[in-house]
Amino acid sequence: MVEESFKTKKRRMIAIAEDSLDFHNAKTACGIIRYGFHDLLAVIDSTKAGRTADEFVPGLGKKIPIVANLEEALAFKPDCLLIGIAPKGGALPESWMGVIKETIAAGLDVYNGLHTFLTNDADMMALAKKHGRVIWDVRKPDKNLPVALGYCKNAKSYLLHTVGSDCSVGKMTAMLELREAIRKRGVTIEFVATGQTGILITGWGQPVDAIPGDFMAGAVEMEIMALDGKVDIIMIEGQGSLLHPGYSGVTLALLHGSAPDALIYCHQSDRREIARGYKIPIPPASVMCKIYEDAAGWVKPTRTIAVCLNTSRQDEKEALGAIQATAEESGLPTTDPVRFDSTAVVDAIIADYKKFRSKK
Amino acid sequence: MVEESFKTKKRRMIAIAEDSLDFHNAKTACGIIRYGFHDLLAVIDSTKAGRTADEFVPGLGKKIPIVANLEEALAFKPDCLLIGIAPKGGALPESWMGVIKETIAAGLDVYNGLHTFLTNDADMMALAKKHGRVIWDVRKPDKNLPVALGYCKNAKSYLLHTVGSDCSVGKMTAMLELREAIRKRGVTIEFVATGQTGILITGWGQPVDAIPGDFMAGAVEMEIMALDGKVDIIMIEGQGSLLHPGYSGVTLALLHGSAPDALIYCHQSDRREIARGYKIPIPPASVMCKIYEDAAGWVKPTRTIAVCLNTSRQDEKEALGAIQATAEESGLPTTDPVRFDSTAVVDAIIADYKKFRSKK
Repeated sequence: MVEESFKTKKRRMIAIAEDSLDFHNAKTACGIIRYGFHDLLAVIDSTKAGRTADEFVPGLGKKIPIVANLEEALAFKPDCLLIGIAPKGGALPESWMGVIKETIAAGLDVYNGLHTFLTNDADMMALAKKHGRVIWDVRKPDKNLPVALGYCKNAKSYLLHTVGSDCSVGKMTAMLELREAIRKRGVTIEFVATGQTGILITGWGQPVDAIPGDFMAGAVEMEIMALDGKVDIIMIEGQGSLLHPGYSGVTLALLHGSAPDALIYCHQSDRREIARGYKIPIPPASVMCKIYEDAAGWVKPTRTIAVCLNTSRQDEKEALGAIQATAEESGLPTTDPVRFDSTAVVDAIIADYKKFRSKK
Repeated sequence: MVEESFKTKKRRMIAIAEDSLDFHNAKTACGIIRYGFHDLLAVIDSTKAGRTADEFVPGLGKKIPIVANLEEALAFKPDCLLIGIAPKGGALPESWMGVIKETIAAGLDVYNGLHTFLTNDADMMALAKKHGRVIWDVRKPDKNLPVALGYCKNAKSYLLHTVGSDCSVGKMTAMLELREAIRKRGVTIEFVATGQTGILITGWGQPVDAIPGDFMAGAVEMEIMALDGKVDIIMIEGQGSLLHPGYSGVTLALLHGSAPDALIYCHQSDRREIARGYKIPIPPASVMCKIYEDAAGWVKPTRTIAVCLNTSRQDEKEALGAIQATAEESGLPTTDPVRFDSTAVVDAIIADYKKFRSKK
C-alpha cells in the first residue's frame, strides 16, 4: 500500500520506545533515522531520558535526544508519532494505548509498524476522525491480494534480491547503501520494501510477514510487476532466513514471488547461529549461497553475485579479516557497504545487469 | 481453533456449490463427503440440478443429490450449510450473500472455508444473532498466535508429515487413509489439520494458508505441542509444494514448524508439471524427496519413508505401472492408499516409529 502524504511531505516525527531503545528492538527507529526521508526529532523512553539515542544504538550517526514523556516530546513541535519499535513479544503493550490517544488528541498523525493494528480499535478511530488525524498501520495487509502467477520469471527489469543468514543481519541496510552507489553509476533503480521499516522509509511496499500465507508471494510479485520495465534494476528487500524455523516461509515466499535474476547474500560477521536460542548453526557463506540458489532454482535459476557483511560488532581489524575470509571462502566480492568501500560489489552488480540486458 | 459443537454433534449438512461442482473446486465438499463425521445430504448447483455429485467428481463413492436452490435443499431438513467449495478466484461471490442470509433466517448454521470471512459482515452477524445461529469462518486465524520456537525438534511423539509435488495431489486423503490402517495396528495417532477441508473434517486445526507469514510455523507448532506425548504418532497435514511459486512459503513454514521425524511424499501420478499454467516441471520422486529432505534438514534432519500416489485419473493397469515405476525410481514403498493395498507403506511407518521410540 502507498501512503501518499507520507511519501511526499517531509514530516516532523517523534518515536515512542518506552524501555525498548536497544540494538534489536530499535531496528525500525534506526532505519528511519539513517535512511528515512523524514526528521526524527526525539524519542520517548522514560528509562533513558536526558541521554541521546546513539548511546544505546551503535552506528546511528545522529544524536537524537531521549525525553521522558509525550509532553516533553511535544516541545519539539512534531506533527506525527512513530511506533516503529518492536517491544518484547512483538505486540503493542496495552499500557501504550493511553499515550497514543493523547498524541492524536494533541493533533499528531500516528504511524504504527507492529502486528497489533490501531485501526481495529473503534475508540482510536473515532478519536482520529474527531481530530482529523491519519493512523497508518504499516503492517495491515491490503485486501484482495493475488496468488502469485509466476510473472516475475520473465520480468523486463533486472531483479536483485537480498537473502540472509538470519533476521536483523542488515539485508535492508545493504540494499539502501548499494542503491545510492548504483544510482551514481547512471543506472535507474527502485527498492521494493517488504517489511515495516522499509515501508516507513519509502512510503510504500508490502508487509510480507503480516500477509496471509497464500498471498505473500503474490503481493511482492504485484509490486514488482507494477514497476517492471520502468527502471533498469528492481531491488527486492529480503526477510528472515531459509534456516529460521519461525520465518523461513516468509523468506521462501519472497524468493519465489520475486524470482530474482541475482542474489546478494547478507550476514552479520560475528553471528555463529540463528539468534534467540534456536540452536541452529549458520554454515559458511558458500553453503548458504548454494541453499538459496537451490531453493530459488525450483522456480527460476539464479546466482549469488556478491556478499554483504554487517561487521558493526567487530573492530576494524576483525571486520577486514572477516571480509577477506568470506571473499576467499565464497569466491565472491564481499564488503560491509556501511563501513567500507563497496566498489567491487557494485561492479559485480552492474556487470551482471549489463549481461542480463544484452540477452534481452 | 476448535469448534466443539461441530466436533461432537452429528450434523445434517447441505453444501452450496453453484456452478463449481467439479474435480478442482469441489475439493472441500468431497473431503467432507468421504471422510467427514457429518452427513452431507444435498448440494445446491442450479446448473446440474437433478443429477448426483458423483457424476461430476470421480471417486466420490456416495450418490449425493444435486438440487436447484435453497428451497429444494431445505426439504432434506438440514441444520447447517457448508460453503466449503472454492469458487473461481478463491473469494466468495457477492451474489451468494443473499442465499447465505436466507439460510441463516431459515435456522441453519453456516460453515465457510473461504478466504472471505462472513463474520466480518455486520449485517450477517446481526442476522445470526437474531436467529441464534453459528457462523464459523474456518480460515479465520486465531488472535495472538506465536512465532515458532523450534519446540518440535524435540517432540516426544513421532511426527509424520505429508509433502507433495503440487496442490491437490491427495496429501490429506493419503493421511486419512493411512491413519485408519495405522490405528488398526494398535498405535494411537492424531491428525493435525492445516487446511479448510481437514479442519471441517476434524473440527479443529490451523488454516495455515490464511495465517500471517510470521505466525504460520508457530501456529502448527502450537497444535503439535498441545498433543505431544499424548499419542504415539502425530500426523501433520501438508499444503502446497516447495515448487509452487504461489504457495511454497506455506509449505516450508509447515515443514519447519512441524520439524517431522519422517515424510510421506505424495504425487498425482499423471501430473507432469505444477497445475494451472506455471510451466514448472515436476521432477522424479527421488529428486522431490531430496528437495524436501534438504529443506527440512536446515532445521532438523529427516527422511522420506514412503510414497503415496493419487492414480485416480488412470485405469488400473496404468495405475499399477505408475506405482511400480515410482517404487523402483525412489527405492521406497509406494501405493495409492485409496485404491490399493497399503500394507507396505503402513509397515514402513510402523517400523520407523518403533525405531524412533526405541531411541527415546
